[in-house]
Amino acid sequence: METDRRPRIEIISTGTEIMQGLYADTNAQWLSQQLVAIGLPVSCHSAVGDSIGDLERHLSLVAHRCDLVIVSGGLGPTADDINRHAIARVYDSELTEDETAVQQMRERFARRGIPFNDANRVQAMVPCGARVLYNEWGTAPGFLIEVDVGLATLIALPGPPRELRPMFDRWVRPYLLKRYPPGERFVTLTLHTIDLPESEINAKIHDLFDADPALYVGLLAADGKVEVRLTTHGAEEEKVQAALEGFRHQVGDRLGRDNIYGAEDETLEGVVAGMLRFHRQTLAVAESCTGGMIASRLTNISGASSYFLEGFITYTNDSKVARLGVPRELIERYGTVSRQVARSMAEGVRARTGADLGLACTGIAGPSGGTPEKPVGLVYVGLAWGNDSAVIERRFLGNRNENRTYSVNAALDLLRRHLLRQDARY
Amino acid sequence: METDRRPRIEIISTGTEIMQGLYADTNAQWLSQQLVAIGLPVSCHSAVGDSIGDLERHLSLVAHRCDLVIVSGGLGPTADDINRHAIARVYDSELTEDETAVQQMRERFARRGIPFNDANRVQAMVPCGARVLYNEWGTAPGFLIEVDVGLATLIALPGPPRELRPMFDRWVRPYLLKRYPPGERFVTLTLHTIDLPESEINAKIHDLFDADPALYVGLLAADGKVEVRLTTHGAEEEKVQAALEGFRHQVGDRLGRDNIYGAEDETLEGVVAGMLRFHRQTLAVAESCTGGMIASRLTNISGASSYFLEGFITYTNDSKVARLGVPRELIERYGTVSRQVARSMAEGVRARTGADLGLACTGIAGPSGGTPEKPVGLVYVGLAWGNDSAVIERRFLGNRNENRTYSVNAALDLLRRHLLRQDARY
Repeated sequence: METDRRPRIEIISTGTEIMQGLYADTNAQWLSQQLVAIGLPVSCHSAVGDSIGDLERHLSLVAHRCDLVIVSGGLGPTADDINRHAIARVYDSELTEDETAVQQMRERFARRGIPFNDANRVQAMVPCGARVLYNEWGTAPGFLIEVDVGLATLIALPGPPRELRPMFDRWVRPYLLKRYPPGERFVTLTLHTIDLPESEINAKIHDLFDADPALYVGLLAADGKVEVRLTTHGAEEEKVQAALEGFRHQVGDRLGRDNIYGAEDETLEGVVAGMLRFHRQTLAVAESCTGGMIASRLTNISGASSYFLEGFITYTNDSKVARLGVPRELIERYGTVSRQVARSMAEGVRARTGADLGLACTGIAGPSGGTPEKPVGLVYVGLAWGNDSAVIERRFLGNRNENRTYSVNAALDLLRRHLLRQDARY
Repeated sequence: METDRRPRIEIISTGTEIMQGLYADTNAQWLSQQLVAIGLPVSCHSAVGDSIGDLERHLSLVAHRCDLVIVSGGLGPTADDINRHAIARVYDSELTEDETAVQQMRERFARRGIPFNDANRVQAMVPCGARVLYNEWGTAPGFLIEVDVGLATLIALPGPPRELRPMFDRWVRPYLLKRYPPGERFVTLTLHTIDLPESEINAKIHDLFDADPALYVGLLAADGKVEVRLTTHGAEEEKVQAALEGFRHQVGDRLGRDNIYGAEDETLEGVVAGMLRFHRQTLAVAESCTGGMIASRLTNISGASSYFLEGFITYTNDSKVARLGVPRELIERYGTVSRQVARSMAEGVRARTGADLGLACTGIAGPSGGTPEKPVGLVYVGLAWGNDSAVIERRFLGNRNENRTYSVNAALDLLRRHLLRQDARY
């Protein structure tokens, strides 16, 4: 058994549905997460259709170049479930029926009150000498083949995630932990930034990472936000955690702490909700182009009723006048999409509802409605509080739905930065 | 150029995030759908991390065994964007800066009002002799390399789906249709159903498909809706389309036409929007547990202002009374989450706004707030029109966000079925 080096691991998913694009390969994703967490990063994912020849050729190549391969799918009772046959050919093995597996299938059918059909027995056929991984969550068992030399250890699991996942938990993780005891600790930290382009983040922190070969940094941009993902590893848990904490501080210094709104699974709305609760402030929202998206993000947090009073979706000019008291002259003079109207909406929704804070958004989501002076993607967000208010302007270049999402993030971020400044006053 | 046989096509996705399980490889899924639809099924998907050596080894193997390879990701400006370098090595080519691409980048930054940083120029570096695939949807262009013999044609696309998809539409599909004119026609039809469980759909239509080996059917459940995906193929376009149309009718008869709300890329909100426009009816919305999600779905359709008047997010009881005129006694007597309050909210929002239709939703999204009589997931949707109204009750079993999404779908579907009955009266 290898102890001196990490094994090279590959994942093969099988299924013509994957090749036709009917669904994404979420098994490879889930398995990779589990493996990274125990210090076993995966080198390559691949997916092939339900053809014995294709899988045999592909598996033969993979099994000769890695130490461990996990193959998922194709263990069911139908004609396109060809994995056991292809695997038996590559591993030069005969298939044999496992009696315990047949017995478990019979019992499973009996529990569901369904007659047992002999067509199901093929699912109990496993390569000679393989260790059978029994399946309590479905019909087909998986199996594990260890050979002395030349070919990777192979683990075959059924394709349905509701079977594959508990089978990994029950059989595969314990096997891997025993065979490859985590010598090194792998730790990961994801920081969420907003309002900084990916290229600027890269320019600001790039040199930090060239210095340390144990540190890996990945940037992932989505919805006008960029995730900074730090991964490092080392022999001692405490030292690795301390190193990561050090990197976190350095990244914060370089990017500006205000630009990092959270870490790990924190969301912009969750962070804002926590700050509103902490400051015991209430909020009301007035939306035009975002059409309810700001409110729906804020109310997706359980307990939102403690800070969210109400929302107005004033899609028409009439409703901006009637519900928020925006002066009609203001709309006529500056246009619906203007700094002035955003401010008036924010002040109006605050006044009408008695909330501590009024947040408002008006913009042109597109695809139509733009002009040379006011192009599609132009958005104003207003925030009113106490005797003061603020308005920001943004120009987005996405499609309708993207511009709406970017606008929501900009609005939540304006609110967050305002509440941050309150924190600073303590 | 091949005309006598279908090319062998592979897709390679790159990104350490994929290997770490941060997200599923949805680019391979989407590209496969597009390719199958033009008669070019894919043989193999694979994914590798952001290491030049790994990608170079893997790409070299793949490019020698297939006719066409599409590589996505890794074209950005940062250090882990290594694809152009690995590709240039495998294709034995130098990288050179494309002036047009630099110019487009500068213009893009100018439109967003962001200073152009020279670090971005690396994105305009493409292999000598490659055809540049310009990118109007993001910064980094893609490219296409055709070599005479021995190596696959290579197409490199950026990783973000919002760039990759329109670039495929604009550059790749036309290229492939010209190079590989479809011999067999592959046609696919996706029907969208709501309010029918997957197992019931399967029971009702399963026998239809056992009869015809050319027909493939897939069911995909999500958000309380189920997609029925029909795929068939044959030599003659007309016959294949007619066969698919026949299957569509049979499926409609078996499932009930009202339960199929749309086909292909139609959405529930898009279908409802079309019906509202057709009947020249206006709508106002009052939301409690969905917190703006119904309005945001309805206003994500361009031109929503012709039917959507306004929305109220009446999260508190006070706001239900103040904005919608729900009698306080009604809330006290029946509770906020009740048939009576849902009806009163729908009638109230219609009366206050002058809309033709008032749609309202009240429920317990969870995770807290449930009682034995009124459990988490209990939702009432009300619709008011003319002198009449309707209320439906649903009991969902999801988490908070799922229950909210199911509620929105139930609300939109109630509206759809009402408008359908109006159609029937014509």
